[in-house]
Amino acid sequence: MIAKSQVKWTEDALTALRAPAGFRLADLDPDATPGYAGDKKDGAVDLASGLTQLAEYQERLYAESHGGDGRDSVLLVLQAMDSAGKGGIVRHVVGGVDPQGIELVAFKAPSPEELEHDFLWRIEQRVPRPGFIGVFDRSHYEDVLIGRVRALAPADEIERRYDAINAFEKRLVEQGTRIVKVMLHISYDEQGERLMERLERPDKHWKYNPGDVDERAQWPAYQEAYQTVFDRTSTPEAPWYVVPANRKWYARLAVQELLLETLEQIDPQWPAADFDVEAEKARLRATMR
Amino acid sequence: MIAKSQVKWTEDALTALRAPAGFRLADLDPDATPGYAGDKKDGAVDLASGLTQLAEYQERLYAESHGGDGRDSVLLVLQAMDSAGKGGIVRHVVGGVDPQGIELVAFKAPSPEELEHDFLWRIEQRVPRPGFIGVFDRSHYEDVLIGRVRALAPADEIERRYDAINAFEKRLVEQGTRIVKVMLHISYDEQGERLMERLERPDKHWKYNPGDVDERAQWPAYQEAYQTVFDRTSTPEAPWYVVPANRKWYARLAVQELLLETLEQIDPQWPAADFDVEAEKARLRATMR
Repeated sequence: MIAKSQVKWTEDALTALRAPAGFRLADLDPDATPGYAGDKKDGAVDLASGLTQLAEYQERLYAESHGGDGRDSVLLVLQAMDSAGKGGIVRHVVGGVDPQGIELVAFKAPSPEELEHDFLWRIEQRVPRPGFIGVFDRSHYEDVLIGRVRALAPADEIERRYDAINAFEKRLVEQGTRIVKVMLHISYDEQGERLMERLERPDKHWKYNPGDVDERAQWPAYQEAYQTVFDRTSTPEAPWYVVPANRKWYARLAVQELLLETLEQIDPQWPAADFDVEAEKARLRATMR
Repeated sequence: MIAKSQVKWTEDALTALRAPAGFRLADLDPDATPGYAGDKKDGAVDLASGLTQLAEYQERLYAESHGGDGRDSVLLVLQAMDSAGKGGIVRHVVGGVDPQGIELVAFKAPSPEELEHDFLWRIEQRVPRPGFIGVFDRSHYEDVLIGRVRALAPADEIERRYDAINAFEKRLVEQGTRIVKVMLHISYDEQGERLMERLERPDKHWKYNPGDVDERAQWPAYQEAYQTVFDRTSTPEAPWYVVPANRKWYARLAVQELLLETLEQIDPQWPAADFDVEAEKARLRATMR
């Protein structure tokens, strides 16, 4: 276990942010900071110290399966309404880790080829290998979110998918992947302000799409679709964590803490040498001038 | 163009480090710091300020092709003898950039399926998309390096590959990819010390492989194979840059500078909005409470 210096967490994030049976999205304040007693300034300090810990955990996780026979991996699934801050999580939390240990996938609208297969076909291909931290920026959950709101598939097909997701994730967990499913939860008003900022800044125009306002018009339907996701897929093997995200500093710190606590549970160790260290030293020494 | 604050570079790295016709690897001192007048302390300052510039260039490069019709990409090819510091470049230079803009591939020994195809088959599949900075940790050059030293293919096949590489890279360049080919150049003695350090530290054992000493025994043959690579594939379209790497701080700074100067040449711009900004503001405002 790597020493942790965070002092402002009053409760494990894995506990404070978990969506248990009966969880109601509508009851969670997007401005809240569950489990954390500090303010924005404390958060910056804890985020920086957390990066160092995360980097060491990642290296150990990688080492465990590359120099040893470890089979552990982590999969961070990020879902959110547009502008909720997925990109900031990737940049400021995932970006602090050695890129050699990260497998990041941004899932877009499926291609014609992908649409010919089951919705989990393209997902399966991108699950992290042992030793890696996989990050899904959007995921198979789009197929029961936009898929449901926009009726992109028949109702009975959407219905089928919840159990298919649970079976799929259960298999991943059995194979050694810890799945950390995160929904970043912002308010309707906050989204309006963030989209307006994109329109007001010429260097942000490229991030804006007129379709964003069309999606925003479906806000209640999306909240309902998320509620159904939590009701149906927040399983003991792979629970959902709902992170209030109106405060960007908190959302980043919370996702980092979820990853740290998950890695702490894995507690990866430097693997023992599978060769005779002294004999190798002698061989190497013989090559030195 | 983004303002650059580096003051200790006395010459463009793209000029100082380029392997031109007649370049002799044996004549380049691995302890040298070509083009840079500062010391290790200056290097740390310049590396930190360079990270900020690189992050902005990367975002613009990405934006140019995701909000506009830009086709530019960058491909950093990293080659080196074992322990020369490729991993450190990825961690400390590439790692400072938003992971969403990076496509990193670590090429290992080819799989049986890959071996059934031409050696460039697996490479072609991993070239960066427009807007991305691709990083190859090892590359198609292994097929004329270990391929040559270990005679993994007949001599006439190895011979064929140099021209095939040049044609392949020319095509990439024509399609908008700037290729930055970097060889990290360490000395034989330095490699010995670095391998010994891996043997002396239990947390580094996983990075050591007894095969490393076998490869080290082929040092002169590898230096000769690299020389042939420079002679045959340092083309005007895609020249080689040879970075003295006994000083890790210099190697990292130099690779960062090569990337910065390459992006400066591209000079990516924020794309103009392809929608009516005022009309969208009005649409969005209508959704706000």
